[in-house]
Amino acid sequence: MGTLLLASSEDPASMNILSKVLELEGWGDSRIFSHGQVSRHSCGRVDALLIDELHIWADGIDSEHESVTGSIVDEVLVLSKHVSASETPALTLHAVGVPGEYPHGKKARSGGITGSAVPPSPRFGELFRTMNRIAIELGLEKEYDLTMEATHHGPLLETPTLYLEIGSTAEQWVDERAARVWSETISLCLGLSEGSTNTKWTGSGNVMIGLGGGHYAPRHKAVISSSEVWVGHILANYAIVFEDQDDDSIPLGPWAHAVRTAVESTRMAFPGGNVFAHLDRKSFKGWQRQALTSLLSELEVPVLRGKQIPLP
Amino acid sequence: MGTLLLASSEDPASMNILSKVLELEGWGDSRIFSHGQVSRHSCGRVDALLIDELHIWADGIDSEHESVTGSIVDEVLVLSKHVSASETPALTLHAVGVPGEYPHGKKARSGGITGSAVPPSPRFGELFRTMNRIAIELGLEKEYDLTMEATHHGPLLETPTLYLEIGSTAEQWVDERAARVWSETISLCLGLSEGSTNTKWTGSGNVMIGLGGGHYAPRHKAVISSSEVWVGHILANYAIVFEDQDDDSIPLGPWAHAVRTAVESTRMAFPGGNVFAHLDRKSFKGWQRQALTSLLSELEVPVLRGKQIPLP
Amino acid sequence: MGTLLLASSEDPASMNILSKVLELEGWGDSRIFSHGQVSRHSCGRVDALLIDELHIWADGIDSEHESVTGSIVDEVLVLSKHVSASETPALTLHAVGVPGEYPHGKKARSGGITGSAVPPSPRFGELFRTMNRIAIELGLEKEYDLTMEATHHGPLLETPTLYLEIGSTAEQWVDERAARVWSETISLCLGLSEGSTNTKWTGSGNVMIGLGGGHYAPRHKAVISSSEVWVGHILANYAIVFEDQDDDSIPLGPWAHAVRTAVESTRMAFPGGNVFAHLDRKSFKGWQRQALTSLLSELEVPVLRGKQIPLP
Repeated sequence: MGTLLLASSEDPASMNILSKVLELEGWGDSRIFSHGQVSRHSCGRVDALLIDELHIWADGIDSEHESVTGSIVDEVLVLSKHVSASETPALTLHAVGVPGEYPHGKKARSGGITGSAVPPSPRFGELFRTMNRIAIELGLEKEYDLTMEATHHGPLLETPTLYLEIGSTAEQWVDERAARVWSETISLCLGLSEGSTNTKWTGSGNVMIGLGGGHYAPRHKAVISSSEVWVGHILANYAIVFEDQDDDSIPLGPWAHAVRTAVESTRMAFPGGNVFAHLDRKSFKGWQRQALTSLLSELEVPVLRGKQIPLP
Repeated sequence: MGTLLLASSEDPASMNILSKVLELEGWGDSRIFSHGQVSRHSCGRVDALLIDELHIWADGIDSEHESVTGSIVDEVLVLSKHVSASETPALTLHAVGVPGEYPHGKKARSGGITGSAVPPSPRFGELFRTMNRIAIELGLEKEYDLTMEATHHGPLLETPTLYLEIGSTAEQWVDERAARVWSETISLCLGLSEGSTNTKWTGSGNVMIGLGGGHYAPRHKAVISSSEVWVGHILANYAIVFEDQDDDSIPLGPWAHAVRTAVESTRMAFPGGNVFAHLDRKSFKGWQRQALTSLLSELEVPVLRGKQIPLP
Repeated sequence: MGTLLLASSEDPASMNILSKVLELEGWGDSRIFSHGQVSRHSCGRVDALLIDELHIWADGIDSEHESVTGSIVDEVLVLSKHVSASETPALTLHAVGVPGEYPHGKKARSGGITGSAVPPSPRFGELFRTMNRIAIELGLEKEYDLTMEATHHGPLLETPTLYLEIGSTAEQWVDERAARVWSETISLCLGLSEGSTNTKWTGSGNVMIGLGGGHYAPRHKAVISSSEVWVGHILANYAIVFEDQDDDSIPLGPWAHAVRTAVESTRMAFPGGNVFAHLDRKSFKGWQRQALTSLLSELEVPVLRGKQIPLP
């Protein structure tokens, strides 16, 4: 197998996207299992799973799907609503985890376990760039922000995972045009449509981790848009918390664990990859940047500037 | 008392059906209790309870209702949405439990405790046949599948229970015509409307357990539609899992526990009844059918074919 | 700081009110934190927090907001849907807790911990009277019941809290006019609009606790409407449960704990206040009234009749 598309009946945007995905050719009839309803695509590499629970609480659904259905899951794409206080319509995607939350080891408010992260699906960059292209083709780029988000929320899974989202109010959650952007993006990137290719990580390449900036990661997004780089975790400033520093010692705070976790988790998703970091430099103070650079050097993760990022 | 109609404010179909039910004559004002809002019908045999939690998680709500209100609950009818990946509009009902899920004793993904089942309300057959008749009278039979489902999901209750559902997308959940089918069915079967009768199990009769087939149980449904048999649990193939058999010994796997549990749970709902099993024969391999027959014989449950099922 | 406005993306009415509140002038951009999205008002006294979890389950969100953002929270106003089986459109507010539920110390069906109560925000009376005035100004008083409710449901918080609600079906949850009543009420009572004042408890005044009557507290509401009294917990009869009394001893049952808890919790919200009780006399039997009066006397809480309640 390959990809598990995860939808939840509690989430109207999730149902909207699932519905459009199942209109693609090649799906078999859905079957009820103990954990949910499963449709299998005739390509043999994609299952769609509909569960009753909201997906952010569905810890371990990847291994449960494997044990119940016998499928092998090596990627989870969660179909989800996006919510924002600003109510800006948006198509967005992001990796999962709460590596910067502290204290560690507790159930986080929006799912997941504080201090931990889920490996990102290696398709992050390609899904983002394809979603952008399709949204423009369908004429939605003026109505919807086409964006990505920093790593946040649950569930806790072992398999490389991404959230694909429509937001940010009920009006957009049920917009079939927005769902179509995601269904076509999925179809192309997973090789479900004729002529499309199922691009997979093959063990070599440059993989970018984004550190710093706001939740919608504008500087990292600019780099990812204009290159063909592979993309791992993106940690916004709120996930890289430093305690104030009085002297020249290494600053305390949850930041170091968050960065280590993001690097490890990205390496798990891209075995053999050259992981490098891209910093939103202006979002850090000098001593914070220095602490980050020093830790990244210890982790053997070079820090590259935008211009240094290798072209495809 | 008698029947507890359970609705949840988290479920739009549940609210839709409750609203239509409360339009029937004879309801008193609703009263707030610690577990939810209770309306009592003047017949003295029916309470409607509205809770905030989604009903599939409401383990023990039957005994809580008894202790908080002093009512005796001997039947729970849950008003619910139905969800399916295929998006087929449907009116459906089913018994509750996850007797085939393994390992046992854990909280299941969609509520209930793995390995356990809730006794089905003895009104299963009558509710199904009445719902069919009313849906046809109201001209909905072309728009909606009129169907039943195999036993699945939570909550865990002690009282005989059925789920009455509208599905399978948000469009149907709020369809007042669909809600009216259920409100009239409830009114007739519970004896709330003039001239209707409150048919109860009186300690003798033939009670069918359905084993095998898909989730929507077409072969069992055919028998139940064309007879007046009482109906207990229906287990679909996914709940009767055999491990592959190498020799002639009794096959291992969760199947035996699931069947025993379904039989015991059905007998609790129909004390004194003649419980028999109807098999969807083509859905089993020969050695599986043999294992089932042997276990059913040990449990003193005869296996009957469609033609052998006693007429009313 | 001062006030935390709490909204949940699972609750359409909550999102509707939040949206109208954020249209008021003076809000900064929203920022993502580990517990949710935070917008800060330029007055420096009000944060709006949007969480993914339904608010009734958000135990401890007040102290989590403090530790994550560094803000001091001394009041929580929860923006919420209201649900009622009768489907009456309503604008309503109420304090939080389940002090009358028994046995104590357990997670209650609709959130909170049985036997405990959350201090009510001291703004209860003023918010109620302002909401009434604005709803009439906007011409909604014929369409919506303008009401208050007895203390009920969760979450468990330490900070003085009120629920501000729109009900009671999905049609009203998304009514922007209803949301505007609450946004203008909040703006006026929190001093966000020009010329408005941020009325705070300053350590002296008469504070009414309401005991007895139905959930919508008509007799207590009449007193609160026609006075400028401060308002604490209101316990409906269902939260003041007496066991039947055989002799002249003090009656047993959860009532005494509920009343003690309501008094203590109200005193925490109004330090230095003159707490008195107003009884819905007809809702109690003579021996119940006597038991209440005796307990209230022991707690040094005078019982006042409507006419005795001091004018502003």
